[in-house]
Amino acid sequence: MADDIHLNPLERLSARLADDLAGVDRLIRVRMASENAPRIPEVTAHLVGAGGKRVRPLLTLAAARLCGYGGDDHVKLAATVEFIHTATLLHDDVVDESAQRRGRPTANLLWDNQSSVLVGDYLFARSFQLMVETGSLRVLDILSGAAATIAEGEVLQLSAARNLETTEATYLTVVRGKTAALFEAACEVGGVLAGATETEVRALAAYGDALGIAFQILDDWLDYGGAGEGTGKNLGDDFREGKLTLPVIRALPLADEAERAFWRDAIERGRSDDFARAQAIVERHGTLEATRLEALTWRDRAKDALAALPDSELRGMLADLADFVVERAS
Amino acid sequence: MADDIHLNPLERLSARLADDLAGVDRLIRVRMASENAPRIPEVTAHLVGAGGKRVRPLLTLAAARLCGYGGDDHVKLAATVEFIHTATLLHDDVVDESAQRRGRPTANLLWDNQSSVLVGDYLFARSFQLMVETGSLRVLDILSGAAATIAEGEVLQLSAARNLETTEATYLTVVRGKTAALFEAACEVGGVLAGATETEVRALAAYGDALGIAFQILDDWLDYGGAGEGTGKNLGDDFREGKLTLPVIRALPLADEAERAFWRDAIERGRSDDFARAQAIVERHGTLEATRLEALTWRDRAKDALAALPDSELRGMLADLADFVVERAS
Repeated sequence: MADDIHLNPLERLSARLADDLAGVDRLIRVRMASENAPRIPEVTAHLVGAGGKRVRPLLTLAAARLCGYGGDDHVKLAATVEFIHTATLLHDDVVDESAQRRGRPTANLLWDNQSSVLVGDYLFARSFQLMVETGSLRVLDILSGAAATIAEGEVLQLSAARNLETTEATYLTVVRGKTAALFEAACEVGGVLAGATETEVRALAAYGDALGIAFQILDDWLDYGGAGEGTGKNLGDDFREGKLTLPVIRALPLADEAERAFWRDAIERGRSDDFARAQAIVERHGTLEATRLEALTWRDRAKDALAALPDSELRGMLADLADFVVERAS
Repeated sequence: MADDIHLNPLERLSARLADDLAGVDRLIRVRMASENAPRIPEVTAHLVGAGGKRVRPLLTLAAARLCGYGGDDHVKLAATVEFIHTATLLHDDVVDESAQRRGRPTANLLWDNQSSVLVGDYLFARSFQLMVETGSLRVLDILSGAAATIAEGEVLQLSAARNLETTEATYLTVVRGKTAALFEAACEVGGVLAGATETEVRALAAYGDALGIAFQILDDWLDYGGAGEGTGKNLGDDFREGKLTLPVIRALPLADEAERAFWRDAIERGRSDDFARAQAIVERHGTLEATRLEALTWRDRAKDALAALPDSELRGMLADLADFVVERAS
């Protein structure tokens, strides 16, 4: 790996854990098979083979190795985490009525909503079977708790949509549900499996939580500020779907009469698709930039949490990863 | 309970286990709450309060008590089983685009498909949290396996729909997935929790499997032969949705040219809704009656399996329950 220098931090982490990651991919392929229902691997192969970056399983692998784990069960947990993630993607696409995911048509368009719902259920069930195999009740408790938090966050997002009263606290709960809960659990179970100290396990959980929040806030920033080539996002999706994200939540108390009327029309009633105006407002009030800075604050918290963990090459890579998830902004 | 004689076998079992069942209801109410997302209890209360008969949790309670269990964790497992069942109902309604369930509008019509998908996910996650609390890895293995079999069966049913090549073996796999797998697991985990012998656990599993198959085949019979008042079913639903069930699967090899053309039009292409003709065909070939007899065969297998269990009042009640699920036919 002489040209490591040309890789981004996520690619460097993948290269460092290449053998473990290959094991995860093999296990995913074996476990998503279904003798009885051939449509299952068709649907999942479409998603699993769609160039996902494997961020979450990498977190589990890195956390376990960083805490000195020498066994093989971290591969099972990493595959578990990826199954949960893939299941939520399948269900999200039904919920969002999405047409694209990772630059390809979504499963619900290629097949149907029914397949997305049921294959998602299958992956959830398979993920629980996999984690049961590790025999750790604490791991089971963490991951089943994360699954509940994820679903709760998604329901909350649904009922908060088009509601201009949405607070920043609600926003953060949604962000934790849709992204940070699985990042947190992915890190935490790696430490638990490795038999790390309580302090280390808490540090891993805090790192995952802050990393996930930084990642999601930056994602929400991109939707108004910078999406486009290379990001796999469409500018203005959140706006058009009436999702209340940080740039808008912070712009609302600063809005004058005309702006308030605009947000009501656009977000509450879905009657305006003047995204350029929305962009101009969040830019003028500085709430777009404040959103980016909020992501950087969470990035810093993620890096601070790492201090309680053994100083090592992997720890440095996790710190670099925290920088990387907010660098998409520059 | 002087007028026990006026109760049907399911009601008698409910009365016998009334305290345990009240505990299950209390636990369900507590665990389906969500501080963050008030829509969750709204959706689930609608379903859980909709007069479900609690067959599955009763099986878990009865199996545990029958094997001499004296603790409280069977209430947790029974609630787990009901959560899994409720989650699959919510997802089924999205899949079937149903408008009615238990004589009331389905959640996906009252709220939206999104809520049905996500609240179902939440209940799945909560069910896993509950079973983790029992601390039994074997229970976790059985129930996570059942969840996978359920999803697999539903996907198989989806890809078998409108396919006249569907075999009786595929039909049985679907029946096990959509109904018998959870009946089987519900019985089995009760025995495992009670520390029953392997022979007893196997007997409970065999009873649940056969009971579930008898129940589902009878349900499929009702759809052509007897649905209507009191059954909560609409005659002809399976026919109109292009589902291949036993009366039709067995009528296909006996079909003459004209009948084959009719099935192709009706089932494969969804172009005929002449349900009266479908009924006449399955009646004339005797495959409707053969379906009812097949349900009775599985009823007998269920009762036979009980022989390996301790002779007791509860065992007698489980035998009566097997008679009851096929009596809806008379």
